[in-house]
Amino acid sequence: MKIKPMAPKLKVFIIGLGLIGASLGLNLRDSSRVVTVMGFDQNPDTRDQAIDMGVIDYWKNIADGAREADVIFLCTPLGSYREILANTRIVLRPGTIISDVGSTKEEVMKLFQDLPAGVWAIGGHPMAGSEIKGLAGADRYLFENAVYCLTPGPQVPAEVLESLIDILAVTGARIRIMEAAVHDELVAAVSHIPHLAAVALVNLTQGREGYLMLAAGGFRDTTRIASSHPEIWNDILLFNRHHILDKLDELIANLQDIKQALVQSNFQHLNEELWQAKAIRDQIPRAHRGLIPSFHDIVCIVPDKPGIIGQLGFILGQEGINIVDIEILRVREGDGGTIRLGVPSEAAARKAVTVLKDHGIKAWQR
Amino acid sequence: MKIKPMAPKLKVFIIGLGLIGASLGLNLRDSSRVVTVMGFDQNPDTRDQAIDMGVIDYWKNIADGAREADVIFLCTPLGSYREILANTRIVLRPGTIISDVGSTKEEVMKLFQDLPAGVWAIGGHPMAGSEIKGLAGADRYLFENAVYCLTPGPQVPAEVLESLIDILAVTGARIRIMEAAVHDELVAAVSHIPHLAAVALVNLTQGREGYLMLAAGGFRDTTRIASSHPEIWNDILLFNRHHILDKLDELIANLQDIKQALVQSNFQHLNEELWQAKAIRDQIPRAHRGLIPSFHDIVCIVPDKPGIIGQLGFILGQEGINIVDIEILRVREGDGGTIRLGVPSEAAARKAVTVLKDHGIKAWQR
Repeated sequence: MKIKPMAPKLKVFIIGLGLIGASLGLNLRDSSRVVTVMGFDQNPDTRDQAIDMGVIDYWKNIADGAREADVIFLCTPLGSYREILANTRIVLRPGTIISDVGSTKEEVMKLFQDLPAGVWAIGGHPMAGSEIKGLAGADRYLFENAVYCLTPGPQVPAEVLESLIDILAVTGARIRIMEAAVHDELVAAVSHIPHLAAVALVNLTQGREGYLMLAAGGFRDTTRIASSHPEIWNDILLFNRHHILDKLDELIANLQDIKQALVQSNFQHLNEELWQAKAIRDQIPRAHRGLIPSFHDIVCIVPDKPGIIGQLGFILGQEGINIVDIEILRVREGDGGTIRLGVPSEAAARKAVTVLKDHGIKAWQR
Repeated sequence: MKIKPMAPKLKVFIIGLGLIGASLGLNLRDSSRVVTVMGFDQNPDTRDQAIDMGVIDYWKNIADGAREADVIFLCTPLGSYREILANTRIVLRPGTIISDVGSTKEEVMKLFQDLPAGVWAIGGHPMAGSEIKGLAGADRYLFENAVYCLTPGPQVPAEVLESLIDILAVTGARIRIMEAAVHDELVAAVSHIPHLAAVALVNLTQGREGYLMLAAGGFRDTTRIASSHPEIWNDILLFNRHHILDKLDELIANLQDIKQALVQSNFQHLNEELWQAKAIRDQIPRAHRGLIPSFHDIVCIVPDKPGIIGQLGFILGQEGINIVDIEILRVREGDGGTIRLGVPSEAAARKAVTVLKDHGIKAWQR
C-alpha cells in the first residue's frame, strides 16, 4: 500500500460537536499543522454556534467532510459509530486517518477493520471531561496534561501515527500508545469498575432515611461519579463487557478477602490491605490542573466581606507573589472563611505568611 | 437520682487536643454557656501550644480536670477510652456529663455503662475532618454545618441532653439525636464500607504498570479516602465489626447483581441501577462549606500572570460584587487558566460577566 504523502497542513473533520469534539476543534484550530477544521453535528443550532465560538471553520455534511478530510475524528457516542462508518466508507480516500474519542477501544478497532484499504484507523481516548456537557463546555485547555491514549491498527505506518501525534501536540495532552485490549483492561480497572462500585455503594442507602444526612466527605467523594449521566454507560458496559466482568470478579474477591479477615479478627491482614492501598493511592498526584509542576500551600482565615479575595491577591501581588492555586475551604457568612492559597515556592509561602500577618490576617503554611 | 442543677456557665474539660478536640476547644471558648475550657494532651508541647493558640484556657492532668469539670469530652482514639475511664471513674461527681467524639457509638456506650450513678454519658460523633491532622488543623469552623450525632444513654434526663446541645450550638453543627446502634449502622453504610471499597478498588491496580497513569478524576475521587491514615481504622473495624460485616455482605450482593445483569445482557436492569444511584446521589448537596445557602457560578478564562486573581477580585469588588466562592479549574503556565467564581445572585452573575468582558476577560455564566 502506497502512503499518501502528508500535506504540510492537514484538513480535519470533526463529527460530533459535544464537549470533546468541540474542545478538540478549539485546539486544532490553533495547530500549525492544521489548515482547516470542518465539523458536523446533527443539531443545526450546534453547527452554527460552533462556528460562532471558533470551534470549527465551517460545517460540512458527513459524506462531504469525510471525502475532503485528511484526518477524521469521530466524537459521537460509541453506539453511533457503525452507522456513521457505513455512510462514510465509500467516500474515504486512501491515506485518510480516522480516529475517535470513545471510552473503549477493542470493539471500536473491530468496527474500523472494515474500512477501505489504505485508510488508517487509529483509535483514540482522551481521558478528560467536564461537568459542563456539550458544546457549552468546550474548553481550549480540556486536554492539558490529560492522558490521551492512541490505539493504532496493526498496519498503520509509524509516520502516519506520528502525523496524528503531531497535530494533537497542541492539546498539551500526554499521548500514550497502547494496544486496544490493554487500554480496555486498564480503563475497566480505573474507570468502569470504580463507577459500578459507586453505584453499588449508593444503592446500599436506598430507601433508608438518615443515611444521606450522615453522608460526609468520604461518601461524597467515593460516590461522586454515580451522579454522572447513565446514558453513556450502556455503550461502555456493552463495548467493554469482557474486561469489566473480569475486574468485577477481582473486586468481589478483594471484598470477600476483607470480609474473611474481619470475621477472623485478622487485623494484621486488614492493616496490610489498608497500608498497601494507601501506598498505591499516594502515588496518584493531586489533580493535574496545568503544567505547574508543584506549589506550596498556605492557609489563611479572612473576614467575609466584598473584595476580600481581591485584597488577598492585591497584597500578595504587590510583593510579587503569584497565587497559582486558590481554594475556599470553608466560609461562614458574616464571620469569615478559611482559604487555601498555592504559591510557586517555599520561599514565596514563607513570605506570603509574613505579609498576610502584617495585614492582620491569620495565616500559616500547610 | 437527683440532678445537679446546671450552673449558668459550665466548666469543660477536653481530653486529647488533636484536630477534633482542639477545634472543639476553639468553639467552646466562644460559647456564652462555657466559663472555662480545660484541656489535657499526653504531649506536653501540644498542651502549651493549645494555650498559645487559644484552644484551651489552661491544662489539667486527667484526674484533676475530670474532678472539676461539668462536661468532659473524650477526644482521644477509641482504643484509649477504657484506660482513661478506669483512671477517672473514682473522681467523677454526680451530674457530670461525659461525652466523646469517636467514630462508633455502640461499644463506646457499653464502656460508659460502668460509670458512677448520676454521671451522664452522652456519646458524640461530629462528622467533620480535615486533611491537616492534630492541633495544627484546629479550626473554629470545622463543625459548621456538619452533622453532629449524639447518642444519650437511656437514663439521661432531657434537660441534661439539652444543656449539652446548648453548649454545642456555638459550633454551628447540625445536632442529631439517635440510638447508638442506629448510628453505627448508618456510618457503616456511608463511611466504613465506602472506605473498604476504596481500599479494594485501589488494590485492584496492585503491581500493574500503567493503571495509575490512566487514573483520571473518577478513580481519584472514588479512592481518595484510601489515602487516609490506616491507624484509626483498626479501632473502627474492631468497634463496628458487626455492622460493617452486614453492610459488606450487602455491597457484595449488589456487585454480584450487577455482574449477573452484565452476563445476561440485562441492560434494562443495569440502567435501573444506574438511574437509581444517580437519583439518590443527586440528593446529596455539594460540599457544605458554610452557611451560604447558594450561589451562582460564572467561569472565566484569564491570562496566567502575577496578581490576576487579585485583579479579578478588584474588578468585581469595585462594582460591589462579592466573590463567595472561587475555584481554579485549569491552569496552563504562561498561557492562562480557567477560573470558576461564585457570586451571591443571578443578577450579580450577569453583571460580573458584563464587567469582566468589558475588561477583555472571556467570561460566561455556568
